[in-house]
Amino acid sequence: MGMIGGSMDAFIGAVHRRAAALDGEIELVCGAFSSNPEKSKATGKALFIDPERVYGSFDEMIEKEKLLPEDQRMDFVSIVTPNHVHFAPAKAALENGFHVIIDKPLAFSVAEAKALQKVVDKTGLILALTHTYTGYPLVKEARQMVKSGKLGKIRKVYVEYPQGWLSTFVERSGNKQASWRTDPSKSGAGGAIGDIGTHAANLAEYITGSNITEINAMLNIVVKGRKLDDDSSMLVKFENGASGVLLATQVAAGEENNLNIRVYGEKGGLEWRQEEPNTLVAKWLDKPKEIIRTGSGYLSDVAKLNTRTPSGHPEGYLEAFANIYLAFARAVRAYKPGKRIDPEKFDFPDVADGVRGMAFVDAVIKSSNSNKKWTQIKG
Amino acid sequence: MGMIGGSMDAFIGAVHRRAAALDGEIELVCGAFSSNPEKSKATGKALFIDPERVYGSFDEMIEKEKLLPEDQRMDFVSIVTPNHVHFAPAKAALENGFHVIIDKPLAFSVAEAKALQKVVDKTGLILALTHTYTGYPLVKEARQMVKSGKLGKIRKVYVEYPQGWLSTFVERSGNKQASWRTDPSKSGAGGAIGDIGTHAANLAEYITGSNITEINAMLNIVVKGRKLDDDSSMLVKFENGASGVLLATQVAAGEENNLNIRVYGEKGGLEWRQEEPNTLVAKWLDKPKEIIRTGSGYLSDVAKLNTRTPSGHPEGYLEAFANIYLAFARAVRAYKPGKRIDPEKFDFPDVADGVRGMAFVDAVIKSSNSNKKWTQIKG
Amino acid sequence: MGMIGGSMDAFIGAVHRRAAALDGEIELVCGAFSSNPEKSKATGKALFIDPERVYGSFDEMIEKEKLLPEDQRMDFVSIVTPNHVHFAPAKAALENGFHVIIDKPLAFSVAEAKALQKVVDKTGLILALTHTYTGYPLVKEARQMVKSGKLGKIRKVYVEYPQGWLSTFVERSGNKQASWRTDPSKSGAGGAIGDIGTHAANLAEYITGSNITEINAMLNIVVKGRKLDDDSSMLVKFENGASGVLLATQVAAGEENNLNIRVYGEKGGLEWRQEEPNTLVAKWLDKPKEIIRTGSGYLSDVAKLNTRTPSGHPEGYLEAFANIYLAFARAVRAYKPGKRIDPEKFDFPDVADGVRGMAFVDAVIKSSNSNKKWTQIKG
Amino acid sequence: MGMIGGSMDAFIGAVHRRAAALDGEIELVCGAFSSNPEKSKATGKALFIDPERVYGSFDEMIEKEKLLPEDQRMDFVSIVTPNHVHFAPAKAALENGFHVIIDKPLAFSVAEAKALQKVVDKTGLILALTHTYTGYPLVKEARQMVKSGKLGKIRKVYVEYPQGWLSTFVERSGNKQASWRTDPSKSGAGGAIGDIGTHAANLAEYITGSNITEINAMLNIVVKGRKLDDDSSMLVKFENGASGVLLATQVAAGEENNLNIRVYGEKGGLEWRQEEPNTLVAKWLDKPKEIIRTGSGYLSDVAKLNTRTPSGHPEGYLEAFANIYLAFARAVRAYKPGKRIDPEKFDFPDVADGVRGMAFVDAVIKSSNSNKKWTQIKG
Repeated sequence: MGMIGGSMDAFIGAVHRRAAALDGEIELVCGAFSSNPEKSKATGKALFIDPERVYGSFDEMIEKEKLLPEDQRMDFVSIVTPNHVHFAPAKAALENGFHVIIDKPLAFSVAEAKALQKVVDKTGLILALTHTYTGYPLVKEARQMVKSGKLGKIRKVYVEYPQGWLSTFVERSGNKQASWRTDPSKSGAGGAIGDIGTHAANLAEYITGSNITEINAMLNIVVKGRKLDDDSSMLVKFENGASGVLLATQVAAGEENNLNIRVYGEKGGLEWRQEEPNTLVAKWLDKPKEIIRTGSGYLSDVAKLNTRTPSGHPEGYLEAFANIYLAFARAVRAYKPGKRIDPEKFDFPDVADGVRGMAFVDAVIKSSNSNKKWTQIKG
Repeated sequence: MGMIGGSMDAFIGAVHRRAAALDGEIELVCGAFSSNPEKSKATGKALFIDPERVYGSFDEMIEKEKLLPEDQRMDFVSIVTPNHVHFAPAKAALENGFHVIIDKPLAFSVAEAKALQKVVDKTGLILALTHTYTGYPLVKEARQMVKSGKLGKIRKVYVEYPQGWLSTFVERSGNKQASWRTDPSKSGAGGAIGDIGTHAANLAEYITGSNITEINAMLNIVVKGRKLDDDSSMLVKFENGASGVLLATQVAAGEENNLNIRVYGEKGGLEWRQEEPNTLVAKWLDKPKEIIRTGSGYLSDVAKLNTRTPSGHPEGYLEAFANIYLAFARAVRAYKPGKRIDPEKFDFPDVADGVRGMAFVDAVIKSSNSNKKWTQIKG
Repeated sequence: MGMIGGSMDAFIGAVHRRAAALDGEIELVCGAFSSNPEKSKATGKALFIDPERVYGSFDEMIEKEKLLPEDQRMDFVSIVTPNHVHFAPAKAALENGFHVIIDKPLAFSVAEAKALQKVVDKTGLILALTHTYTGYPLVKEARQMVKSGKLGKIRKVYVEYPQGWLSTFVERSGNKQASWRTDPSKSGAGGAIGDIGTHAANLAEYITGSNITEINAMLNIVVKGRKLDDDSSMLVKFENGASGVLLATQVAAGEENNLNIRVYGEKGGLEWRQEEPNTLVAKWLDKPKEIIRTGSGYLSDVAKLNTRTPSGHPEGYLEAFANIYLAFARAVRAYKPGKRIDPEKFDFPDVADGVRGMAFVDAVIKSSNSNKKWTQIKG
Repeated sequence: MGMIGGSMDAFIGAVHRRAAALDGEIELVCGAFSSNPEKSKATGKALFIDPERVYGSFDEMIEKEKLLPEDQRMDFVSIVTPNHVHFAPAKAALENGFHVIIDKPLAFSVAEAKALQKVVDKTGLILALTHTYTGYPLVKEARQMVKSGKLGKIRKVYVEYPQGWLSTFVERSGNKQASWRTDPSKSGAGGAIGDIGTHAANLAEYITGSNITEINAMLNIVVKGRKLDDDSSMLVKFENGASGVLLATQVAAGEENNLNIRVYGEKGGLEWRQEEPNTLVAKWLDKPKEIIRTGSGYLSDVAKLNTRTPSGHPEGYLEAFANIYLAFARAVRAYKPGKRIDPEKFDFPDVADGVRGMAFVDAVIKSSNSNKKWTQIKG
């Protein structure tokens, strides 16, 4: 693996590196960690990487790695730059024969996302998108439960992603994470809706196995002076006839990273909260609620496959992240030119999810600006 | 106290009687428990009431009680009939000099509600509406915390009322509660939105001290064949500039009576869940979340006044209900013709809350039928 | 009902009155609320009691009530005085033909308790002891689950009663509750062990249906200057072969009234916590944990019989208390001289539980003073 | 790092490997994964290890690695074999100049443990013991809170470690984990008490900063036919005057890995549960309970140092484990012959903790067999 972005002071780069390292199946062999060559070098050194393979730019990395013998060069790139530097390196990597794993959102705009989808289609290579939260074993269990029909036809979906860290004007006081995420030139057209709303939408669609088709949205800039939305809520309709509510806000003061979802069908419901991810509560019409726990013997195969420790030994965010890396790495290993991988066997978010995410952001902004009640998502 | 409605097989009548009895300050002395005189008599007997004061109709009760000496006759009536039999007995009682406590909703329609408000205004008598949930001590504490400015200006309000008991077509199989609640001729124009949505709206307005001014709503009939909405969700805007989400549904399979609210201001947030009502969680920007508990020494006076036991001795639904009865009874005792009671001193929902509730239901139905995004509540 | 003790500034008197009033089946008709006649009168007035039936002493009350016609006089007495004034009024009431309901502990000493048991046996009248916590519907459900064999043979029992209110020397600063409870001349030989340890033991025995036979105990006086134990912990053995731990402490700073129990059998376990009494968690070897909830349709008949509201409408401490009063009152109503009542039908703690509680306290003190590991309870 | 034990089908070997890999500071370069050379080779291959450095025995590994140039050979060994194969490889490694990290318990017996302590003392090398649970950031926070005096003098400690997986006779049906853990020839004299009781004791001593000095214990073999204790409970006294209860059982049917601890001082208490390790509840005498959360800005430096992700991104068991590996690896890197490392700077359990653990098991067995109430731990 070669990494693009992720110098020492970035948050998400270290997360990707740990997720990749956890299972001992992926080795970080090179990187273009920063557009600042000194910074890139310092990062490479701290990571014990051969200085010859620490590059000053992603172009250089792709070019030089391509010249290495096949068994030495990197197999794929991991792109962990801010949103406006997603498209170019991803395109370059794919066009030069490298698979890609990329932090969400896929790109800066719907147009970029669709262009990237075409490159993936043309090259036949693998692109994974790190919508972390679908990597949790109990999210996979929830999807299986819906799929199996245990809940009956799904009627209601409530998905929420409240955070509180943008409750004050932190981008003005030098918070680096806040700065680029609230800057339209780096983040894209969506603020909270792009940063976390897409996670919420992806989670809901993954668990229900059904896409959001229409939304009725309100975007707000709650903190004065901010340039992008920091708060959103919307009514949603799903392809399968279900309806519900989606909300994503970064001004829920005192909330940490409280992504949660509740899904109700004819026979029962499910509730999952990311902050306590090893518990999934099932609710039933005529019998006691059930507490379903990560690592338990009664879980589905896919949940078990994505778990590393016995029940009662909590797994967390990094393990969920690692599940995406592991599925991607195994797909890369199984890759044969000209053959599509089986998404059931290698379960990770892909370029289509990325395009949908961008279309979702687009539609939410459109809906929020409209007096019309419902806006379709054109994905 | 004289009761109208509430024969032995009704649910809410017994709740009212227990709430009234709990503190030993209210005595049930007479009743017109059913339009069926036999049933009324049997109920009176089971309740150890003087058979002479068990009446066949509310008209008879009001007429005969009025003839009794002042120190013997009932002081007020408690009306616990289905919605379509709220207006007439309330009006009759007030016009004959009896105060009224009445189960919510106030009336069958906005018109009736406004007419009743006029009667209250004209007679100067006291009318209390049993929006139970604002009777909980920690709901009162939450209101105080908002009022005191501890949370800063309120920005977001999320209030939910999910139940699951109407997930199947139970009204067809003889569930009496379900039958009248899903019957427009008895319940009024709103189904879930009237039955429980009004509680959610009242709770949000009570805690924030601000009224909902605009809504953007979706009403659904999820269970086929049902005549009234069993599911609702809406975006809401408040007078003070806050916005949020309100949902009330009776098809969230597996949910019991899971009313809950989260309120976020500039400095922190609050979370309260009716099913564990003795805990209020406060969330803060820069310090640990706090678990505020009923009965604790650090609570506000109003919370303490509405609590009967020391902390760790859980109070519940009946105690919250009793708080409304007690505040009402003390207002009745303090009543002096021509003088308005102080709502801060005698804290219970009144006729204005009732009119607002009816206007809310009206606006939600209108919004749901409209393609326009936002509809104003005209209260 | 006539009350002995329970003047306006006492805590437990008001609890008993509310518990008695809740269901409308018991009327407080007279009282000797205080040994101070003025105080007794003031209390009676505040409670709307006929001044002629407010007495200056329990002797006077028993004597005068006995003279009233049978359909007017009190049916039973409720004794809510401190421990050292339990025996005399209970004995007097029974010997004059009045049933008795009495706050725990039964008496001041084992000797008194056994003497009272003899009076009960001789008179054939009914005595109920308000071990409140066995009044909760889910405690009754837990007992049923054990009885039914769902958990298999019981192996382990862990019961805890931590409170924090005696963490400082509050008895010195005028806390009335603390004063008598830490005074051996009023409380008896046990401090925390008598006040709350007996509740824990009673709860464990009630749920498991098996008596504690041997203990290995450590009593402590943690707060310097205190005269009675404020802290206890012990290993315990049960008649049925199970073993476990019992602890009761009043110096667990920050705890409210956190009585809780866990019981494990061959096939599964149960966990119940008094501060959230409407949830009982069942744990199983090979399937998800279950959340059993008060008011649910799937509960046992005895749990349902002891519940007043539908699921999701929380019940609390007063309702549990009222369950004991109601069962007692119905037993009193069903009473026929010379016939024993059926304890399965009228489910409340009785004189035998009271004697066991006193013997338990006695044994704990003996064990704590001994170097021998195990001490038998002689009940 | 070179690993001893940990072939593909072992549980704890993979945990150690992931913990070591997570932060990219430790590389697994060689191993003697099994006494079966074929199995060892297969494991090495699956782990992408140079076949030349996959050895057939720990002796061979130590001998051959020693011959490699200093910058190529392993820096330390990780020992993950069953208890009876701890002493020999640890001694051999140390005596040949390799630091050691070893799964708990330190050795098979107190004698072995003390002998190993002498080797450590003599060689001056570093030995870390993986008492995982003290690696959690909030356990470290709890220790800091006690140390800082926020809780006042510590009075009560309740530590529990209930599991349910040995509720049936699983060792008979081929459960490999159960087989060696219940076999005295492999596990040593303690069953549950050695396997998990030592974790509980270590956790209590780590948080309170005070050693357990005396115990009063009951060990049981609950499942018939089992050769070692599967259940224990005991009263405990600490050096600093506190007392409490410790229990460790593997027959609490339905429990997963529910290690938990509560500590109470004069001013407040703490509660931590391993299954939700990112929450630490602080309880106070006169103010609301607090929910302290991993990753929060208000935490101590040591807690922050042991955290990888922002608050709300849950960390788990592997991260706690990795904290021990990381502290150990950094100590190894900082190692200078003849100089002791600073235990405050490199915070991991060491050989002294290991010796104490063995002495604890010894004392518990002695106490359980004695009729005397209290037994001293001679550590």
